[in-house]
Amino acid sequence: MVDTAPRTSKQSPAPARAAAPTPQAPAKTAGAEASAPRIDVASLGRQLLGTWPDIRMAARERAAMPELQRIEGQPMAEHRERVLGQLKILVEQGAVHRAFPKSLGGQEDHGGNIAAFEELVIADPSLQIKSGVQWGLFGAAVLHLGTKPHHDKWLPAIMSLEVPGAFAMTEIGHGSDVAAIATTATYDEATQEFVIHTPFRAAWKEYLGNAGLHGKHATVFAQLITKGVNHGVHCFYVPIRDDEGEFLPGVGGEDDGLKGGLNGIDNGRLHFTNVRVPRENLLNRYGDVAADGTYSSPIESPGRRFFTMLGTLVQGRVSLDGAATVASAMGLTIAITYGNQRRQFNASSDTDEEVLLDYQRHQRRLLPRLATTYAQVFAHDEFLVKFDAVFSGEADTDDDRQDLETIAAALKPLSTWHALDTLQEAREACGGAGFIAENRLVGLRQDLDIYVTFEGDNNVLLQLVAKRLLTDFSKQFKDADAGAMARYVVSQTAERAYHGTGLRRLAQTIADFGSTARSVSELRDEKSQRELLTDRVETMIAEIAGRLRDARKLPKADAAAAFNRNQNELIEAARAHGELLQWEAFTRGLAKVSDPDTKQVLTWVRDLFGLGLIEKHAAWYLMNGRLSPQRAQSVTAYIDRLIERLRPHAQDLVDAFGFAPEHLRATIATGIEQERQDEARAYFDEQRRAGTLPVPEKAKSKKKK
Amino acid sequence: MVDTAPRTSKQSPAPARAAAPTPQAPAKTAGAEASAPRIDVASLGRQLLGTWPDIRMAARERAAMPELQRIEGQPMAEHRERVLGQLKILVEQGAVHRAFPKSLGGQEDHGGNIAAFEELVIADPSLQIKSGVQWGLFGAAVLHLGTKPHHDKWLPAIMSLEVPGAFAMTEIGHGSDVAAIATTATYDEATQEFVIHTPFRAAWKEYLGNAGLHGKHATVFAQLITKGVNHGVHCFYVPIRDDEGEFLPGVGGEDDGLKGGLNGIDNGRLHFTNVRVPRENLLNRYGDVAADGTYSSPIESPGRRFFTMLGTLVQGRVSLDGAATVASAMGLTIAITYGNQRRQFNASSDTDEEVLLDYQRHQRRLLPRLATTYAQVFAHDEFLVKFDAVFSGEADTDDDRQDLETIAAALKPLSTWHALDTLQEAREACGGAGFIAENRLVGLRQDLDIYVTFEGDNNVLLQLVAKRLLTDFSKQFKDADAGAMARYVVSQTAERAYHGTGLRRLAQTIADFGSTARSVSELRDEKSQRELLTDRVETMIAEIAGRLRDARKLPKADAAAAFNRNQNELIEAARAHGELLQWEAFTRGLAKVSDPDTKQVLTWVRDLFGLGLIEKHAAWYLMNGRLSPQRAQSVTAYIDRLIERLRPHAQDLVDAFGFAPEHLRATIATGIEQERQDEARAYFDEQRRAGTLPVPEKAKSKKKK
Repeated sequence: MVDTAPRTSKQSPAPARAAAPTPQAPAKTAGAEASAPRIDVASLGRQLLGTWPDIRMAARERAAMPELQRIEGQPMAEHRERVLGQLKILVEQGAVHRAFPKSLGGQEDHGGNIAAFEELVIADPSLQIKSGVQWGLFGAAVLHLGTKPHHDKWLPAIMSLEVPGAFAMTEIGHGSDVAAIATTATYDEATQEFVIHTPFRAAWKEYLGNAGLHGKHATVFAQLITKGVNHGVHCFYVPIRDDEGEFLPGVGGEDDGLKGGLNGIDNGRLHFTNVRVPRENLLNRYGDVAADGTYSSPIESPGRRFFTMLGTLVQGRVSLDGAATVASAMGLTIAITYGNQRRQFNASSDTDEEVLLDYQRHQRRLLPRLATTYAQVFAHDEFLVKFDAVFSGEADTDDDRQDLETIAAALKPLSTWHALDTLQEAREACGGAGFIAENRLVGLRQDLDIYVTFEGDNNVLLQLVAKRLLTDFSKQFKDADAGAMARYVVSQTAERAYHGTGLRRLAQTIADFGSTARSVSELRDEKSQRELLTDRVETMIAEIAGRLRDARKLPKADAAAAFNRNQNELIEAARAHGELLQWEAFTRGLAKVSDPDTKQVLTWVRDLFGLGLIEKHAAWYLMNGRLSPQRAQSVTAYIDRLIERLRPHAQDLVDAFGFAPEHLRATIATGIEQERQDEARAYFDEQRRAGTLPVPEKAKSKKKK
Repeated sequence: MVDTAPRTSKQSPAPARAAAPTPQAPAKTAGAEASAPRIDVASLGRQLLGTWPDIRMAARERAAMPELQRIEGQPMAEHRERVLGQLKILVEQGAVHRAFPKSLGGQEDHGGNIAAFEELVIADPSLQIKSGVQWGLFGAAVLHLGTKPHHDKWLPAIMSLEVPGAFAMTEIGHGSDVAAIATTATYDEATQEFVIHTPFRAAWKEYLGNAGLHGKHATVFAQLITKGVNHGVHCFYVPIRDDEGEFLPGVGGEDDGLKGGLNGIDNGRLHFTNVRVPRENLLNRYGDVAADGTYSSPIESPGRRFFTMLGTLVQGRVSLDGAATVASAMGLTIAITYGNQRRQFNASSDTDEEVLLDYQRHQRRLLPRLATTYAQVFAHDEFLVKFDAVFSGEADTDDDRQDLETIAAALKPLSTWHALDTLQEAREACGGAGFIAENRLVGLRQDLDIYVTFEGDNNVLLQLVAKRLLTDFSKQFKDADAGAMARYVVSQTAERAYHGTGLRRLAQTIADFGSTARSVSELRDEKSQRELLTDRVETMIAEIAGRLRDARKLPKADAAAAFNRNQNELIEAARAHGELLQWEAFTRGLAKVSDPDTKQVLTWVRDLFGLGLIEKHAAWYLMNGRLSPQRAQSVTAYIDRLIERLRPHAQDLVDAFGFAPEHLRATIATGIEQERQDEARAYFDEQRRAGTLPVPEKAKSKKKK
């Protein structure tokens, strides 16, 4: 499906191109001046595909199949049926079983599975998320929380879609705070059954994909109670509908109906009135109940047990980070392609209007977002490699799992917010055309909207990151007394002691620190950028830790109040940490580029990302004496220069993402605008040549004078 | 329809309320502590209704009619028919003719007309915009660009909706740059007709409401050509469809199909192939062609003529500013009501979870946006009064019209972007519930998306403002030589000379200027806020003017390049000017509050808005030596305190907007969440009382030890 013919855009006279080259294409493209560096689009494209390039390319080829693609404006009911049918196509193509056990026909390839899964967003985000519900949540709960008998009994029908299922975790009253869900699963020794029960309305399971219509079974999270003790949240396998699609006795629910997007998925609510399931339906990998009601678990601490169970489901966050990055790249490809063709206002010439992307403001709107998207591509690949190492067992310690979760909680918020911001800016940059559904930007944004609050609300996730940073910070001082710690904080050098902790295991150690960048050229320097970005995370955390250091001794309510007074800044510190992770990954990716021209341009992109962060947070750097006012101004001036330098490479940089027309499917990015511009110019040229162009009144009245 | 019963929420024990009181309600509401000030919600509500309170209330009562309201998820075709039918209801109710001539049954009440029109957004933004197309654009073009014969001939059928029409200005290739549209209207002396023609595809009229389906006639903007001279853009009245809905000969078009929102409107494209209309179909108020082809105009300068014609259509921008503010207020009412009921995580107590709005981050997300919305309400009312003065002829000089257009170009971008930002934050603050269509936030955001690029792209409008600021600035120096001007700029006191120009006619003159705020208490001070906000606009403009002062002497292309290098900062300066206008209006509105408690709380809201702007632009203030690092930090600290103080008043502040449940129509804002919380609490209380609550494993294992 993907056009794999070699392209020779080097010879193309127009900077605007209808289609992006696939990464196989060997062409170095035009657009930049002859003397300036030129990106090797093909080799950069290969690098951007990351660690699973073949799987990603195959998934893209699949996403180019019309029968897997969204039909804009399709009514909800039809869209839901279509996506269900698309899931069956994925099964037929063997496209979604890569993570499952080899014994059941899978490949136990966790990283590759997610890489392929993310690319489904190109076809239809509803398809991505509905298949994520089926195999990444419902199926994964059986896989990761269940044991061999469960796998053998239920996975085959889940894998084949014979049993569509819901992942019943969230409740109306509890989303982010999963530990507090109120559904109960009470063990009845007499019948050796669990009784699943919804005690009140707030405990209804809510927003569950597949629950509105198609789900036959569900993995239901509930408080496990046996012998009068609540052992916390566990997962139970519960049939919910019969073969006619009617709810089984005791099960009820509602359809969530229309949503802001993702309407190919039948989200719904479920509730249970004393529904009985056999004891064996407890997915018992991390906690079991014997026939006599005795509870046992391989993990003694209830808290650690809970986080271990939830940790097995981190892949949702991994894949959202990747899919959000793919969607951002698509939006920018559409807007930059159009911005390279559309013209408006003739400021610098009497005949030709300016190309939109030649306006400084237009560049400022799109190019920094392109730089961030590049950073995300590199950060995501490292993230996925880490995920694969943990889930393959290659590097699967508790520390590894905790690091993975911290990275997920840092990156998923940044990339999903970035997707909404970028798709919106792309839509506005395309004006009215951006608002037409056939140009895809509004639909993608509507579908991705929920990514910022599901699989963990972004603000809650960032708070988790911040707590981890605080914990890592305080570990530095665990053998010191409170006075020593306070002195550290007060001395303003606390941040130096902070290096080399688990928190920044992905990051390189920094040798030395300057409190103020000394020159503009230094700001450009990789080391200075790293120092400034790292320093900010560390200083923010150290300051908050200092303010909170006595809070532990306070009564619970006062301690909570103290924490709450720092919540906003904590979350900002976590964001800064995520930005640093992205910058570090970009810098490591840059180091792997071999073509000198490509490296030069990509260095500008990385600098735009890094200095863009410093500009965004300039007030902090100024208030904390890290930048002088003159230096801070020079950051903005240098960003303006970087943007000017990058402007000729904008098309190459989006072309390297490798989307073909059948991926973008946006009329305005097909070259149609260039055709219209050419037609208009030819018309006026012909009129001028023939002398039939009417004289402007203004010119005429001037002549009279 | 509106519940007008007096409310006694003072006695209400719960801070959460299902419905907002109408402004008639005399209640002072609870929520704040007894000792703290309490807002007089009813009197504040009356003030927020502005200069046309009765008209606004009547329009809200109408917007509460179910038959005028949007049905979420209605298919596009049905939605379009429904909205057309709703327009007929508005006609029957005499709701939309207020601006038309008294001789034709109107009231010549321009301000009241817009006030009523804006409130339609509550019922359905599609209804607002489609009625805006019919009477505010198509009808208004005939009214303002035509003359008495046109009014008598066409307005009655336009007013009655017998003739639905399209406003055919924008072309595929030209939106913001209307002067460059390519459709031609060439006068044929032989037949005394204009020949309307679309020379190429980019000149197709595009995104026109009513053009897709319902429009029978259109007001078509085209280059008027007679005797070989192009007299610039004029407007022509052109029939496009017959009574069967088929295009007339020479007319063609396409349906724009599905859009990102506003799908109750049939947008479409139109093109004309030598379509002939009688000479009299030129709307000839500002330019006419005699039978022999001689052109005449009461305005000699083609440029001024063009801007005068376009200026008559400013009401679109006025109404978008108002409607965007209404929508923001609705979104905040929904999110704050829900945030006052929903609980999550029990940080400070073992039994009760925290109300979302008690979290600092949640407050930081919603309360500053509430402050901005308040500023917009006050700014919009002044804007509407100004509009009314110009259009009623009360104050209708060229300067008045130019000021009005500058205000429109400054306020409409800020408020429409704010609406998208606020509706998105409100949706995220409501989590998954915010994504469900029945809670309205996603639908409102989708519909309002296009507000930021239609009726003038926001970035283009802000650039217009910036150009006006530059012009006003240079007028200060028109009698001085270039050296004098340069000295002014260089001396850093240029900004002082800038006061009292037309640009800030809405604003008060400032007596003195300090370069650095001297204390925190001073930052709180009204005068300091004004100084800091004003100084920023003036300094930015003075600096850019300094950089551009020699550009006029450069060749056109070089001058354009110089301007382009400052474009981003120019637009930021215009934004700062718009923010200042909002702050000034808020401050004047605050001065009119008589109830001391209300005044106290509203002063905090105004300070939150003002200091919020200073915090947002802190980097600028620091780089330019206007704030010391210590002062800048104290701004953030003081904002944190303001937010703490305002938190108990959050519900009152949104209740004062006066939306009833039939306006909000959001399930989560009906009090349903409070009921669920109460039910859950009662369940646990009962279990505790009965001793049947299972013991947590954690507690049990502790006991064992």
